[in-house]
Amino acid sequence: MSSNYLNFRNSVPWLILLLEALFIISSYFLFLGPDGQLLPYDSYPEFQDVNHMVIFGFGFFLMVLRRYGFSSTGFNLLIIVFGVQCSVLIEDLLIFFHLEENGGFLESVAKAIISMTAVIISTGAVLGKINLLQLIVMTLVELIVFYVSRWINKTFLKVDDHLSLMHVHLFGAYFGLAVTSCFPEPSPRLDKNESTPKSDLLSMLGSVFLWVFWPSFNSLLAQSKIKAVLNTYFALAVSAVTAFMLSALTSKDGKFRMTHIHSAVLAGGVTISYTAQSISHPWIAMILGLLGSVITILGSHCLQSCLNPPLKIHDTSGVHFTFGLPAVLGALAQVVLFVIREWTNSSSLDYLVLLHVGAFCQTISVALITGFITGSVLNIRLLKIIPVSKYFEDQFYWEFPHLAVGF
Amino acid sequence: MSSNYLNFRNSVPWLILLLEALFIISSYFLFLGPDGQLLPYDSYPEFQDVNHMVIFGFGFFLMVLRRYGFSSTGFNLLIIVFGVQCSVLIEDLLIFFHLEENGGFLESVAKAIISMTAVIISTGAVLGKINLLQLIVMTLVELIVFYVSRWINKTFLKVDDHLSLMHVHLFGAYFGLAVTSCFPEPSPRLDKNESTPKSDLLSMLGSVFLWVFWPSFNSLLAQSKIKAVLNTYFALAVSAVTAFMLSALTSKDGKFRMTHIHSAVLAGGVTISYTAQSISHPWIAMILGLLGSVITILGSHCLQSCLNPPLKIHDTSGVHFTFGLPAVLGALAQVVLFVIREWTNSSSLDYLVLLHVGAFCQTISVALITGFITGSVLNIRLLKIIPVSKYFEDQFYWEFPHLAVGF
Amino acid sequence: MSSNYLNFRNSVPWLILLLEALFIISSYFLFLGPDGQLLPYDSYPEFQDVNHMVIFGFGFFLMVLRRYGFSSTGFNLLIIVFGVQCSVLIEDLLIFFHLEENGGFLESVAKAIISMTAVIISTGAVLGKINLLQLIVMTLVELIVFYVSRWINKTFLKVDDHLSLMHVHLFGAYFGLAVTSCFPEPSPRLDKNESTPKSDLLSMLGSVFLWVFWPSFNSLLAQSKIKAVLNTYFALAVSAVTAFMLSALTSKDGKFRMTHIHSAVLAGGVTISYTAQSISHPWIAMILGLLGSVITILGSHCLQSCLNPPLKIHDTSGVHFTFGLPAVLGALAQVVLFVIREWTNSSSLDYLVLLHVGAFCQTISVALITGFITGSVLNIRLLKIIPVSKYFEDQFYWEFPHLAVGF
Repeated sequence: MSSNYLNFRNSVPWLILLLEALFIISSYFLFLGPDGQLLPYDSYPEFQDVNHMVIFGFGFFLMVLRRYGFSSTGFNLLIIVFGVQCSVLIEDLLIFFHLEENGGFLESVAKAIISMTAVIISTGAVLGKINLLQLIVMTLVELIVFYVSRWINKTFLKVDDHLSLMHVHLFGAYFGLAVTSCFPEPSPRLDKNESTPKSDLLSMLGSVFLWVFWPSFNSLLAQSKIKAVLNTYFALAVSAVTAFMLSALTSKDGKFRMTHIHSAVLAGGVTISYTAQSISHPWIAMILGLLGSVITILGSHCLQSCLNPPLKIHDTSGVHFTFGLPAVLGALAQVVLFVIREWTNSSSLDYLVLLHVGAFCQTISVALITGFITGSVLNIRLLKIIPVSKYFEDQFYWEFPHLAVGF
Repeated sequence: MSSNYLNFRNSVPWLILLLEALFIISSYFLFLGPDGQLLPYDSYPEFQDVNHMVIFGFGFFLMVLRRYGFSSTGFNLLIIVFGVQCSVLIEDLLIFFHLEENGGFLESVAKAIISMTAVIISTGAVLGKINLLQLIVMTLVELIVFYVSRWINKTFLKVDDHLSLMHVHLFGAYFGLAVTSCFPEPSPRLDKNESTPKSDLLSMLGSVFLWVFWPSFNSLLAQSKIKAVLNTYFALAVSAVTAFMLSALTSKDGKFRMTHIHSAVLAGGVTISYTAQSISHPWIAMILGLLGSVITILGSHCLQSCLNPPLKIHDTSGVHFTFGLPAVLGALAQVVLFVIREWTNSSSLDYLVLLHVGAFCQTISVALITGFITGSVLNIRLLKIIPVSKYFEDQFYWEFPHLAVGF
Repeated sequence: MSSNYLNFRNSVPWLILLLEALFIISSYFLFLGPDGQLLPYDSYPEFQDVNHMVIFGFGFFLMVLRRYGFSSTGFNLLIIVFGVQCSVLIEDLLIFFHLEENGGFLESVAKAIISMTAVIISTGAVLGKINLLQLIVMTLVELIVFYVSRWINKTFLKVDDHLSLMHVHLFGAYFGLAVTSCFPEPSPRLDKNESTPKSDLLSMLGSVFLWVFWPSFNSLLAQSKIKAVLNTYFALAVSAVTAFMLSALTSKDGKFRMTHIHSAVLAGGVTISYTAQSISHPWIAMILGLLGSVITILGSHCLQSCLNPPLKIHDTSGVHFTFGLPAVLGALAQVVLFVIREWTNSSSLDYLVLLHVGAFCQTISVALITGFITGSVLNIRLLKIIPVSKYFEDQFYWEFPHLAVGF
C-alpha cells in the first residue's frame, strides 16, 4: 500500500496546481463590469449570508464523524473555492457566447456559490470514503454536469434562472447517492463512522446555523424576495416542530434522536425552495414544512432499514432523506400548486405541467446517470486508494504532531 | 416512576401535534401583505441579525451545564419556532380586530422573535429542572401574558410599541424567577449543575456572540436607529470593561471569574434598552453601561449568598442578575432621564412620570404574579415528572447511542 | 513570587478603572452627529460584519493554545472595547482641532475597530507571554503610535484615509514582533504552547470565519466597494487553494499541516488589502492571492527554522508569516501596479512612487522602533511578572472552580 499511497499524496498538489493555473489563465479575459439587475450591490448582506452559510455552516454541519472534523471543514473550504472559480469562468464563457445574460459579477459569484451547494450535498453522501483527488475530480465533473442540466432546463423546459438553481438539492442528493453506491461499504464493526456526543453537538449547532440562514438562501435570486423569506421562515418553523414531534414518536421510549433533529429541522427549507417565491398563503408553506419533515424522518427509517442494505448504499450523512426526499416532495408540490393556480386557464395546462414534470425527471435522471458514471470512473485503480479500513480518518490526510503517534 | 415517565414521554409529541395543527388551521386566514413602515424589506439584514442572535446565540449562551448541551440548543430552537408561530397568529388576530396597526409580516415576525426573548430568559432560570411538556406550556402561557402586559402598557400607560417590547428583559427575568421558586431545589451535592472548562468556553463564546449582535436587537424597531446602535455599542463597551474590573476586585486573588464575565458583559445592552434611541450624549450611555455591569456583579454576589438561599430560589443561569437587575436599573434611568429632559415643561410632568413608573410596576407585578401561578400549575402531579436526581441531564430526553449505556 | 504576583493582580482593576473613568470624562464632549459620507447608516450590515469578524472571529482564531482559550477570547474582547473607546476619543479630538473631517460616529467606530486589528495582530505574537497589565499598556501605546503613523502617512505622504487604515496588518505584525523579541523565550520542553486537535479545530473554524468576512473588512471604507469585495473574494479563493497545495508539497508524506492552512488561507485577503479597490482585472487579484499564500508558507518554514532561533524571536501564533510577509508583498504589489498604470504619465512618476515606498518604510520603521521601545518598557521590573514557567496558562488569570485544584 505504502508506495501507492505516497503516489497519491504526491499527485494531489500537482493536480491542484494545474487546475489553478488553468483558472488563472482563463480569468485573463474577465473584467469587473457593472452591477447586475437581480443582485445589485445593495444585496451584498444577503450575498454574505449565503456565503457565510455555505462555507462556514456546511463545514460545521458535516462534522458528524468523530475523527473527521479537520477534513470536513478544510476540504469543504477547498472544494468550494475551487468550484466557485470554475463556475465563474463557465458563467463568463456562457455570457461571452451570449448563451446567458450578463448579470454582473456579484451575481455570477452568488450563482457559483449556490451551484456549489449541489457538490457539498453530494460530498455528504461520500464523506470520509473518498480521497481528496477523487473529491476534486468529482467537484469539477458534477459542476459541469449541473450546468448542462440547468441549461437543458432553461432552454428546452422553460424553467427560469432562479428555479433552475433551486434544483441543487435534488441534483446534489441523487448524484451523491449514485457515486456512493459505487464505493465499497465500510465494515459494520468499524466504529469510526459513528458520532460522539461532541461531534453531535457541533453538527447540531451547524444545523441551527443553516436553519437561520436558509431564508436568505431561498430568496437571494428570487423575484419576490420578501415572500420567499417569509414562506421559508414558516416552512422551517413547522418542520422544526414536526422534527421533534416525530422523533419522539418513532424512537422507542419517546426520546429524541439527534440525527432526526439534525436533518429534519432543515427539511422545510428544502421542500419550499421551488415554491417559496410564489406562495401567498403562509398556511401552504406550513403544510409543506410539515410534510417535508415527515418524509425526512419516515424516509430515514425506511431507507436505513429497508432500502440501503439490499442496494448496498452507504450514505454517510444521510443526504438522501435530508435533501433528496424533501426536494422530490417540493417538486411534486410545485406541480400541484401550479395546477391549482392555473386550473381555469386550461388551454395549455397539460403542456405546462409536462414541462414542469419533465424538468424534475431530467434533473434526477441526469444526476443518477452521470453520478454512476462518475462513481465508476473514480473507482478505477488509478484513483482508488483509500482502503476501507482507513475510511473516516483525519490522520490519513493531516499531520497530527499533537498525538506523537506514528501513522 | 417508569410508567409515569413513559406516559410523559408519550404525551409530549401529541401535545406538539395538537398545537401545531391548531397553528396551521388558524394560519388559514393569514395573507402575505405589503411591507410595513417600521420594518421594510431593506431592514432584512438587521432582522437577520436578531434572528441569528436569538436562535443561535442564545442556544450557545445557555450551554452552561456540563450535560445539558443538546437540550439547551435543541429545546431553545423548538420553543422559539413554537412561540414565533403563536405570536404571529396573536398579532394577526389583534390586527384583524383593529387593536393594532398592520405593520406587515416581517415586522410581525420580528416582534414575535423579540417577544420570545422573554421566554428564553425565563427558560434560563429553570434550565434543566423543567421537562419539555412543562416548557411548552410555560412558553405559551408566558407569551400570552406578555401580550396582555404589553397591551395594558400601550393602551392605558401610553408606552409606545418599541418601548413596550423592550420590557422583555424585565418580564422574562421576573417571570422565570417566580416559576423557578415553585420548583424543588437540586441537592447541593449534585455536581451536574456545575460547569466544565469546555462548557464555560462555549458559553463565553455565546456571550461574545450576543454582545456583537445586541446593537441590532436594541435598534431593530427603534425610531432613531443610528442613535440606538451607537448608544448600545458604547454601553456594551463600558460594561465589558467594568465586568473585567469588578470581577478581579471581588474575587479572591484578583482572578477573573467566568460567570461574572459571562453575564456582566451584556449588562450594558440590557440597561440601555429603554433609552438607547433617545440619548444624544454617549457619556450617559457609558455611565449606564458602567452601572449596569456594577449592579450585575454586586447582585450576583448578594443574591447567591444572601437572598436566594433563604427564599429557596435556584436560578440556573443567573437570569436575575444578568437580565433582571440591569433592566430595573434601565427602567429607573429612563424615568430619571425623562425628568431631566422635561424639567422645564413642568405642567404635566408628574402625570407622565407616574405613567412611566406605572408601566414598570405593572410589568414586574404581572410577571411575578402570573409566574407564581404558572409555576404552581406546572408543579401539579399531572405534569411534574422529573425527579430532582434527574435534573440537568441530557440523557433524560435524548438517545445516547454513542455511550452504549442503559438508561 | 507570591506577593509580587498578588500586587500585580491588585493593580490591574485599578488601572482599568482609572482609564475607564478617563474615557467617560473625555466622552462628555462627544455628541451624536449626523451620518458620515463614507459610511451612512445603510452600511450598517457591512459595519456589523467587520465588528462580528474582529470581536468574535479573532477571538476564535487566536484559540491556538491548549490552555489559553478563556484568555484568548476574553482578553480579545477586553482590549477591543478599550481600544475602540480610546480611538473614538482620539478621532473626536482630531475632528475638534480640524485635523480630520467629521465622518459621523458610525464611521469613527468603524475606523476604531479596524485600527484595533493592528493591536490584535500584535497580540497574536505575544499571546500567552504577556500579562493583562502589559497588554493594556501595549494596546494604548500601539493605538496612539498607529494614529501618529497614519497621520504622517496622510499629511506628508498623501496616502488616502482608507489606504492609511489598510496598513494595520503591516504595522500590527512588525510592532508585535518587536515587542515579542524583548520577552524571554519559553522553554522548548514546555508543551503548553502546543496545540491539541480540539484547539486546532476551533482555530481552523476561526480561520474559515475570518475568511468569510474578509471581503467586508477590505471594502468597508473603500471608494469602490463592489470592486474591493470581488477582488478580495478572488484573492482569498486562490490563496485557499494554494495553501492546500503548498502544504502538501512542503510537508513530508504529502499530508496537510493545520498551521499552514490556518494562516495561508487568509494570506490573499491581507495581500490584496491595499489594491483591492483599484484592480479591474480579477486575474491580477488571483495572482496576488497565489503569491500571498506562497510567501506565507515558505515564510513559515524559513522563519521557524532559520530566522527566529538565532534572533530569539518566539512568535506564538505566527503573525510574521500570517500578516507581516503578505502585507509587505501587498505593499510591493501596490507600487508595481501603480507604476504600470501611470507609466505613460511619466512626469511625476518618480515622485509618486517615492511617496508610496516612503509610506510603507515609514510604517514598518515606526512599528519596529516603537515596538522595541514598548517591549523594553513592558519588561521593566515593575510590570514584568509572569515567570516563563507560567506562560500560556489560563489558570494564571481565571478561577477554575471546576478543577478543584489549588493553584
